[in-house]
Amino acid sequence: MATQGQVITCRAAVAWEANKPLVIEEVQVAPPQAGEVRVKILFTALCHTDAYTWSGKDPEGLFPCILGHEAAGIVESVGEGVTEVQPGDHVIPCYQAECRECKFCKSGKTNLCGKVRAATGVGVMMNDRKSRFSINGKPIYHFMGTSTFSQYTVVHDVSVAKIDPKAPLEKVCLLGCGVPTGLGAVWNTAKVEAGSIVAIFGLGTVGLAVAEGAKAASASRIIGIDIDSNKFDRAKGFGVTEFVNPKDHDKPIQQVLVDLTDGGVDYSFECIGNVSVMRAALECCHKGWGTSVIVGVAASGQEISTRPFQLVTGRVWKGTAFGGFKSRSQVPMLVDKYMKKEIKVDEYITHNLTLPEMNKAFDLLHEGSCLRCVLDMQV
Amino acid sequence: MATQGQVITCRAAVAWEANKPLVIEEVQVAPPQAGEVRVKILFTALCHTDAYTWSGKDPEGLFPCILGHEAAGIVESVGEGVTEVQPGDHVIPCYQAECRECKFCKSGKTNLCGKVRAATGVGVMMNDRKSRFSINGKPIYHFMGTSTFSQYTVVHDVSVAKIDPKAPLEKVCLLGCGVPTGLGAVWNTAKVEAGSIVAIFGLGTVGLAVAEGAKAASASRIIGIDIDSNKFDRAKGFGVTEFVNPKDHDKPIQQVLVDLTDGGVDYSFECIGNVSVMRAALECCHKGWGTSVIVGVAASGQEISTRPFQLVTGRVWKGTAFGGFKSRSQVPMLVDKYMKKEIKVDEYITHNLTLPEMNKAFDLLHEGSCLRCVLDMQV
Ligand SMILES: NC(=O)c1ccc[n+]([C@@H]2O[C@H](COP(=O)([O-])OP(=O)(O)OC[C@H]3O[C@@H](n4cnc5c(N)ncnc54)[C@H](O)[C@@H]3O)[C@@H](O)[C@H]2O)c1
Ligand SMILES: NC(=O)c1ccc[n+]([C@@H]2O[C@H](COP(=O)([O-])OP(=O)(O)OC[C@H]3O[C@@H](n4cnc5c(N)ncnc54)[C@H](O)[C@@H]3O)[C@@H](O)[C@H]2O)c1
Ligand SMILES: [Zn+2]
Ligand SMILES: [Zn+2]
Ligand SMILES: [Zn+2]
Ligand SMILES: [Zn+2]
Repeated sequence: MATQGQVITCRAAVAWEANKPLVIEEVQVAPPQAGEVRVKILFTALCHTDAYTWSGKDPEGLFPCILGHEAAGIVESVGEGVTEVQPGDHVIPCYQAECRECKFCKSGKTNLCGKVRAATGVGVMMNDRKSRFSINGKPIYHFMGTSTFSQYTVVHDVSVAKIDPKAPLEKVCLLGCGVPTGLGAVWNTAKVEAGSIVAIFGLGTVGLAVAEGAKAASASRIIGIDIDSNKFDRAKGFGVTEFVNPKDHDKPIQQVLVDLTDGGVDYSFECIGNVSVMRAALECCHKGWGTSVIVGVAASGQEISTRPFQLVTGRVWKGTAFGGFKSRSQVPMLVDKYMKKEIKVDEYITHNLTLPEMNKAFDLLHEGSCLRCVLDMQV
Repeated sequence: MATQGQVITCRAAVAWEANKPLVIEEVQVAPPQAGEVRVKILFTALCHTDAYTWSGKDPEGLFPCILGHEAAGIVESVGEGVTEVQPGDHVIPCYQAECRECKFCKSGKTNLCGKVRAATGVGVMMNDRKSRFSINGKPIYHFMGTSTFSQYTVVHDVSVAKIDPKAPLEKVCLLGCGVPTGLGAVWNTAKVEAGSIVAIFGLGTVGLAVAEGAKAASASRIIGIDIDSNKFDRAKGFGVTEFVNPKDHDKPIQQVLVDLTDGGVDYSFECIGNVSVMRAALECCHKGWGTSVIVGVAASGQEISTRPFQLVTGRVWKGTAFGGFKSRSQVPMLVDKYMKKEIKVDEYITHNLTLPEMNKAFDLLHEGSCLRCVLDMQV
């Protein structure tokens, strides 16, 4: 491409300071260095992690930065040594890298990867520990190794999944975070078996994807718990069979569920990020075998607690990151499943906006009616 | 036997009140009712649960009672409908019942059993919800469904394992609690694989049995952690390969272990009953896959806590009761393993006393040199 090896000037939503509206700026995006890929972002969605860092509550948040981690685009150019993607490839940036070489990747026990974390954790690229984004020479930090709120971004080659070019990017961008997280929490982390009773705390995108995963796994009962009863109607379409609003009960919610299920659920999923709900999710599990998976991300410094007796009597407490999916290997498989109509994606998209409307998209995140808002980045 | 159907008067160590020395009394032991078995106890050991309830700290403890749950004996008589054991059978009473019929037993997912818990939890027998022990007409409560600190006891048929009559009862009595708990925590609950790095917090009987189990599972490193360095020499014989005394370090013990193991251990076991150690045991686990098993029993009301991020990044928190072994089915198999010299038992017995010396045995429990003290009950 004509832009290869050149600095590209394009538009991006820049978070200059915590909790201040993002500003649509002209940014300079340097060419990819060795092991890097420059991607033209066509569509991005928003997720709570973007809002959390933006809010300033994330002690590791760095400003100014370019947020965004749920997106899809096309490779513009690649740096030295990059072999697995080439210009023109359709890709999904992956905040969970997969290098296939580190202790984590080779363990066969986790989808976490250690390769580029030391750089992505502090908003820079591995090669020279610098940012590829700048405005008039002032560097702007990367975010989660993805920074998809820009028309062009630079990512490590281990952080990009090549997908079927026929897949609609305005849909499959969702396969960069929330939907795989929910599906994978069921399939990879909990490994829910047919006939299981499942409880889902929180019926946002992640909780609904858990419901979808549980339905696909032939769970016998899928109980959705939310403090917003408006969530219930929509949730039916994702497989939820029963609803409980904790506000309708005087008893603690764990007791309500134990009573409702003759002793507790087989699997529970916390999809909110609330540490007291995490406790309830564990304690509503059946003695002897109930497994609770923490999916929600709690605010920094908050702690979970319970009586150890809960675990000694057989409950298991786990968590999941990106649903346990290996990003580069498995995101393309999820895209294929979507193309074969085996998993939903379109149904999670409740709003469509454009890059200049980024702040409106952030506002929507806090509205109960919004699941995912997809932004057209090239407008 | 001549005593069949008769009340037996024999000696027992009675706990009249919390925290007061036990008294060796003549007690009346009623004949077994339907589904019950009367057992002549030949040998019993002491375990921390006896001491815990005796201390009065257990809010569910009932007095007066007859404690004891790690023992071996011979069936004296059986009640109506008991088919799986008969007078003369050598048995180990099991505080974890196994009925093979309840939701728990049939789940295939746990060794817990729900059949007699409602009775054993409140110190009585299922059939008439009364005790079989009395002194001059005053009932004395059962304990854990076993009450082995008596020359004769009555247990439910689902709470007794028939074992090889050639096994020495003065040794295999230990297979009623501590040793199986440690072995099973490794084999059944954690399922430690060959080559794993294991950390064991607390090197009492349970911790040493974990070490033995880990060695049998071909763990590559078995790190023993104890605040009493005298424990280390003995622990080598059980498979511990490295020792850490938290008192020798300024850093938190979880950090010491993470540094020592290039990122954390694959499996950790808390064998103390200390909630802050339980947290350390979780947090010293390797990101991505480390699994921590709580074996120790904490005092009532105490809570464990950690940051949910520990679980979201792949650590797993579990617990175990009786090491996950199904009591009636698997205790006989453990006895066979002992007879084939595949597991140790003798090495855990550091002291031998007799029934009249029961209070001395309780004192020994708090001495670092004592693992298990076995009492000859017929003296
Ligand atoms: N572990 C991961 O890899 C990963 C990935 C993506 C998102 N997440 C996290 O998952 C969580 C859910 O994400 P989402 O996009 O679905 O969020 P969301 O805000 O759309 O959904 C949360 C839902 O929880 C409900 N809720 C709030 N408080 C509640 C309570 N006390 N009891 C019951 N329901 C309650 C809300 O009404 C809402 O429906 C967030 O914490 C997000 O950061 C984690
Ligand atoms: N889950 C079960 O089914 C089950 C069954 C049997 C016993 N238990 C429990 O297992 C625990 C261990 O039993 P045991 O008989 O081996 O006890 P023990 O007292 O013989 O051993 C405990 C060891 O921990 C060490 N220790 C104490 N505080 C420590 C600390 N802060 N850091 C490091 N080490 C410390 C002591 O020096 C001792 O060596 C008890 O809590 C007991 O109640 C549980
Ligand atoms: Zn996300
Ligand atoms: Zn890797
Ligand atoms: Zn015990
Ligand atoms: Zn049962």
